[in-house]
Amino acid sequence: MDYVYGPGRNHLFVPGPVNIPEPVIRAMNRNNEDYRSPAIPAMTKTLLEDVKMIFKTTTGTPFMIPTTGTGAWESALTNTLSPGDRIVSFLIGQFSLLWIDQQQRLNFNVDVVESEWGQGANLEILAEKLASDHTHTIKAICIVHNETATGVTNNLATVRKLLDHYRHPALLLVDGVSSICALDFRMDEWGVDVALTGSQKALSLPTGIGLVCASPKALEASKSAKSVRVFFDWNDYLKFYKLGTFWPYTPSVQLLYGLRAALDLIVEEGLDNVIARHSRLGKATRLAVEAWGLKNCTQKEEWYSDTVTAVLVPPYIDSTEIVRRAWKRYNLSLGLGLNKVAGKVFRIGHLGNLNELQLLGCLAGVEMILKDVGYPVKLGSGVAAACAYLQNTIPMIPSRI
Amino acid sequence: MDYVYGPGRNHLFVPGPVNIPEPVIRAMNRNNEDYRSPAIPAMTKTLLEDVKMIFKTTTGTPFMIPTTGTGAWESALTNTLSPGDRIVSFLIGQFSLLWIDQQQRLNFNVDVVESEWGQGANLEILAEKLASDHTHTIKAICIVHNETATGVTNNLATVRKLLDHYRHPALLLVDGVSSICALDFRMDEWGVDVALTGSQKALSLPTGIGLVCASPKALEASKSAKSVRVFFDWNDYLKFYKLGTFWPYTPSVQLLYGLRAALDLIVEEGLDNVIARHSRLGKATRLAVEAWGLKNCTQKEEWYSDTVTAVLVPPYIDSTEIVRRAWKRYNLSLGLGLNKVAGKVFRIGHLGNLNELQLLGCLAGVEMILKDVGYPVKLGSGVAAACAYLQNTIPMIPSRI
Amino acid sequence: MDYVYGPGRNHLFVPGPVNIPEPVIRAMNRNNEDYRSPAIPAMTKTLLEDVKMIFKTTTGTPFMIPTTGTGAWESALTNTLSPGDRIVSFLIGQFSLLWIDQQQRLNFNVDVVESEWGQGANLEILAEKLASDHTHTIKAICIVHNETATGVTNNLATVRKLLDHYRHPALLLVDGVSSICALDFRMDEWGVDVALTGSQKALSLPTGIGLVCASPKALEASKSAKSVRVFFDWNDYLKFYKLGTFWPYTPSVQLLYGLRAALDLIVEEGLDNVIARHSRLGKATRLAVEAWGLKNCTQKEEWYSDTVTAVLVPPYIDSTEIVRRAWKRYNLSLGLGLNKVAGKVFRIGHLGNLNELQLLGCLAGVEMILKDVGYPVKLGSGVAAACAYLQNTIPMIPSRI
Amino acid sequence: MDYVYGPGRNHLFVPGPVNIPEPVIRAMNRNNEDYRSPAIPAMTKTLLEDVKMIFKTTTGTPFMIPTTGTGAWESALTNTLSPGDRIVSFLIGQFSLLWIDQQQRLNFNVDVVESEWGQGANLEILAEKLASDHTHTIKAICIVHNETATGVTNNLATVRKLLDHYRHPALLLVDGVSSICALDFRMDEWGVDVALTGSQKALSLPTGIGLVCASPKALEASKSAKSVRVFFDWNDYLKFYKLGTFWPYTPSVQLLYGLRAALDLIVEEGLDNVIARHSRLGKATRLAVEAWGLKNCTQKEEWYSDTVTAVLVPPYIDSTEIVRRAWKRYNLSLGLGLNKVAGKVFRIGHLGNLNELQLLGCLAGVEMILKDVGYPVKLGSGVAAACAYLQNTIPMIPSRI
Repeated sequence: MDYVYGPGRNHLFVPGPVNIPEPVIRAMNRNNEDYRSPAIPAMTKTLLEDVKMIFKTTTGTPFMIPTTGTGAWESALTNTLSPGDRIVSFLIGQFSLLWIDQQQRLNFNVDVVESEWGQGANLEILAEKLASDHTHTIKAICIVHNETATGVTNNLATVRKLLDHYRHPALLLVDGVSSICALDFRMDEWGVDVALTGSQKALSLPTGIGLVCASPKALEASKSAKSVRVFFDWNDYLKFYKLGTFWPYTPSVQLLYGLRAALDLIVEEGLDNVIARHSRLGKATRLAVEAWGLKNCTQKEEWYSDTVTAVLVPPYIDSTEIVRRAWKRYNLSLGLGLNKVAGKVFRIGHLGNLNELQLLGCLAGVEMILKDVGYPVKLGSGVAAACAYLQNTIPMIPSRI
Repeated sequence: MDYVYGPGRNHLFVPGPVNIPEPVIRAMNRNNEDYRSPAIPAMTKTLLEDVKMIFKTTTGTPFMIPTTGTGAWESALTNTLSPGDRIVSFLIGQFSLLWIDQQQRLNFNVDVVESEWGQGANLEILAEKLASDHTHTIKAICIVHNETATGVTNNLATVRKLLDHYRHPALLLVDGVSSICALDFRMDEWGVDVALTGSQKALSLPTGIGLVCASPKALEASKSAKSVRVFFDWNDYLKFYKLGTFWPYTPSVQLLYGLRAALDLIVEEGLDNVIARHSRLGKATRLAVEAWGLKNCTQKEEWYSDTVTAVLVPPYIDSTEIVRRAWKRYNLSLGLGLNKVAGKVFRIGHLGNLNELQLLGCLAGVEMILKDVGYPVKLGSGVAAACAYLQNTIPMIPSRI
Repeated sequence: MDYVYGPGRNHLFVPGPVNIPEPVIRAMNRNNEDYRSPAIPAMTKTLLEDVKMIFKTTTGTPFMIPTTGTGAWESALTNTLSPGDRIVSFLIGQFSLLWIDQQQRLNFNVDVVESEWGQGANLEILAEKLASDHTHTIKAICIVHNETATGVTNNLATVRKLLDHYRHPALLLVDGVSSICALDFRMDEWGVDVALTGSQKALSLPTGIGLVCASPKALEASKSAKSVRVFFDWNDYLKFYKLGTFWPYTPSVQLLYGLRAALDLIVEEGLDNVIARHSRLGKATRLAVEAWGLKNCTQKEEWYSDTVTAVLVPPYIDSTEIVRRAWKRYNLSLGLGLNKVAGKVFRIGHLGNLNELQLLGCLAGVEMILKDVGYPVKLGSGVAAACAYLQNTIPMIPSRI
Repeated sequence: MDYVYGPGRNHLFVPGPVNIPEPVIRAMNRNNEDYRSPAIPAMTKTLLEDVKMIFKTTTGTPFMIPTTGTGAWESALTNTLSPGDRIVSFLIGQFSLLWIDQQQRLNFNVDVVESEWGQGANLEILAEKLASDHTHTIKAICIVHNETATGVTNNLATVRKLLDHYRHPALLLVDGVSSICALDFRMDEWGVDVALTGSQKALSLPTGIGLVCASPKALEASKSAKSVRVFFDWNDYLKFYKLGTFWPYTPSVQLLYGLRAALDLIVEEGLDNVIARHSRLGKATRLAVEAWGLKNCTQKEEWYSDTVTAVLVPPYIDSTEIVRRAWKRYNLSLGLGLNKVAGKVFRIGHLGNLNELQLLGCLAGVEMILKDVGYPVKLGSGVAAACAYLQNTIPMIPSRI
């Protein structure tokens, strides 16, 4: 029935889908409803308003599309660009690779800026490209805020600064799939034109909503963008927004109620506290990795990700075996190394609705697995390092003071 | 919190989303899971196998795409056709209209065959077109099996007969959104090339899976189809089917477990019994409508739909008021009249996981509402007519004999 | 897995356990919690306060005991009486019979006042007994407010009047299992000393909480009551109430959260509206029974119950067969005739979180079953009679106006 | 709404109520049902059969009473004993104290054998009492298998040996509340006459079922036992067992379905594996305590409990502050020290549906809290000690090999 029952709770530490809070599971535990009744539009209105908060935008227009992150990518691109448009895109890991693959298949002229996996986007090359693009042939910059495959966070503020410095009108399209609602992300302040995430990431819902937010400039661009689109067309949404019924086709009411509950929890905790919690969990994880004597796949501190840590294993160990063993023996779900780093890294996702003791259980598990596969870890070392940091920094739970 | 709580259960009689059985709600009541663990592929494999049953195909290849019916349409079209391709499409109501709109926006050359709303697809015109298309310019026939807006079921067997008669190689693409798993649908026997439905219809799940099934001929066509597609591309799925991991991007594990439970229930009841139950509910509804002295929007018996009944109201009544009142006073959700029949019809959806007494409660409600809005119905008349039929035809519940 | 799955929802019309509203099911869908954390006492405090509302008392002290109605009975008796105490108790049906059986086994001196099943408590005999009891040998009057087996509601106001008239100090112990939160019940106004109900009745929760409310006089009596008791002892509760931890032993936190949600729904609907709804459903059911040409087991209108209707069947029909058939063919759960009225009556429970269309579905089902078993009912007749009344009386759902 | 939401999952490590497995939460997520339909008796029959497994009995008769552990105690005593009967009872901690209090209030003649808290039952004194009781005035031995307040497991095999050695016919009544389904418990082999537990303990359900199992000798004793009882009377159950309807009053169908799911999980894991898992978790916890330099409240290894560890804190620390802090800062629920050991111990419950990584998260949390309150713990030390043991002993999850 459940295929893989193991005693106790599964420890879910893949970088998405992530743990769903109990109140959200409860909110979604319901029969279907007529989405054309007055109730669903009334709730949708509050959702659209509150979703802006997690993008940190007041001027953006959000779309909650029944799709995945891949669909959200497609929505961002096809609504703002025309076939043949030149775009600059950064290849720094598996997910940026997949997005670039999509960009190429959608017939854009993709100017790929590649970095070694483990490094961030090469913004010097971006600077050069912008500097030399006097005729503004570059229509958009596409960048993942956080590359989930390598645990690299790019510096979006710098991207904006470069665009401003060169007074370049290119659109800034940001994949925030593993960042938004977990890392510091500022749509308005950084002049992001399209930002997107998926419900199963830091929002801590099931898969099923691709959240896409468009700046006024992006909306304007959508009027002339010639890419073929129907399901992903913002225009259909905008038409129904005006009508006040909001939905061009059937949404999942369960996910809408779930999103309502998820946003309520974020408001209760405070978005800045949510981000601080991710920062704490990220730092604790890195301290453990260091204590184990292992290397972070991320090559420089400036790119360290607070939502996922990709851990490099010694050459004599196959990281796939670590992930397999985690699941088979410890009921622990870790992320595989993907593509170029397959076998070389395993990943600890520490995003979404998660607390410190959950992470420490995971870290203790990783220590045992490392020993299982022949790495001479000192048991307890990573947990000790993480605890030393956490014990000084965990705040009281506000509602319990 | 729930926006619109009313005492007792909501009576959900829109033609989708429909009532979810309790065992399915239970199956989906769960935390997220790593979809790359061995468990999800193992379950996915059983789903793909069992989904074929509801399409009545052994040779088809199913895709369970995280999308809605609109997305399933787009998947069917873009994977099999190229821009500019001539397709024959039947306009008989709002949903066929929307599909045609999509076909046009996807740049196909749509040969629209229009019928009066309330009539089925004009197959005589199809015959003429096929007869005269010696060079096989028609690449596909697009037809909704059941037009949800008017309660009209088209005769797919005849479509197939015509294609065979004229030895025409056009693909047969069928929207089975409000038919598959409720009406008699035979993908292999009728030579359907792409059939599709949505999880929130007769499968009785939440919205979120667009089920698309492709014949070998459709798969072959997909190799040369030039329509731009990424998210909806079958090829990505096929690649992962071969790898045995099945998912090119993140599915909703909740919906997968829900689909597993839904299919198990269908197997337990027996697909033919499910279809017979829909036939019974459809007939009972039509008998009630007749007893009320009202007309079915569907103009001929051959087109009567067993999943939705569109009821014509007298000119002095606004059907919108009936739907509004149903919700505000009786906690009953009925379907609005759409577009051309707005204000003129209201719709009773009787598909999905539903039994006779649920329907009779709805019919009793409709009688009171009709009286509310000034129609001189004889209270009890529709229920009496439906009961007279049902009391003779309801079978024992097999598991309880 | 579910033993008896039938398509569609089960129509639950036994007079308890009753349908649980979706928001309550959701509220209980949760892991265990430490009941000694500050959270549970904080919630318990609100529950004890709000539970008084459903008893209509401001001076009573409620106890929420992890037990059933039978346990609540035992709690009421053993906390207020001593072995050998004379009590007057009314035997009018199966549940008063069971309570009397308990009273006797607990060694009270039970003065049974029997009525024909279908009649209410014989208050004339009570008057006589009170009139002649100059030495106040009667320590308590035990009476069911609503006898669930026969659908008879006793007149508690008259009982109080008699006690006052004869200035008799006997305690008034009331079984409100199938009345409280559904019928007009006024603990303070009617001078009820102990009132009790079970969570699975009109409160619309699962079984598991026996709610007992004690007047100051009952609490006083508990100080000298010599009946042996530990689990049911109010004193243990009172000790923990003072400590502010509230629970002498482990409660079900799921039921506490469920009760919180149930009370919130009652507040939202308004207790008087809840009672009015039950009155409407009771009347509608009786009109249907009359239209079918059948007799109510309840012999006089003054005793008609708005929570359960016991329907007498003609001698040539076995009512057990009606109940069996309801379940086997229609997925409808009706109440059996019990003990003296076994085979002679079937019962329609119309209490708890229920609305009119649910009832009408049930009534339509009963009509078909009556025909199944050979009773010459005119199909639709009962529904018509009920609808004629309901269509004039159902109010708008306040939150939807 | 949830009163005390904290980010991430609550870490529930009180020695009951314990964590409920997701499949069990799902199984209970349902509407009420008519418990007199054929479905509930059919399921009840399987439950009664399978419940024997967790008691390790083939000759016992189980009762699933809608009550708590306190009610189960009362049921065990009142069904087998008469007021004034002499019973030997061991006082070794708060829960044996409460049981003795109940025994005294039920008017038994309780011969209390007291031990220091932290020690097991003094079986030498039992031997003396049995040796000198030539006239068999002792009617029952009452003993807790596992004292939850101090983490002491008594040796039941020795109790049986003594009874056999002295050929003493006293009944052996065992409180297995925090042992059965977690520790090695053998009803038949050890000649236990009444064994009992509560659903919220190792069975990992919500509170609400008191499971009591009676040997043939205990059933025989119940025929002459004169203690007053109604709600807790086995005889009412036996009457309904014979009728095949099983329930003298309304059970919670949610708990029955939950128990079904819980038993299925135990069968899947294997009861011996469940017990081995508890042994592993108990040992790991004790190793951590030792590494922290703290003492176990349990004074000798022979009494070590594998379901709960009571940890003694240094005199300068208030253990209550540890529990408070755990909850307020770490979302961790620990057990308080009770009565004599209040302020002196805190308790880690490690029973029920729990796995190693969950425990390690808890242990890491305890380390931080110890530091918070001024105890000079070496962070990571306890986790390291536990991991060193666990890494060698955790088996593969059978369903995942």
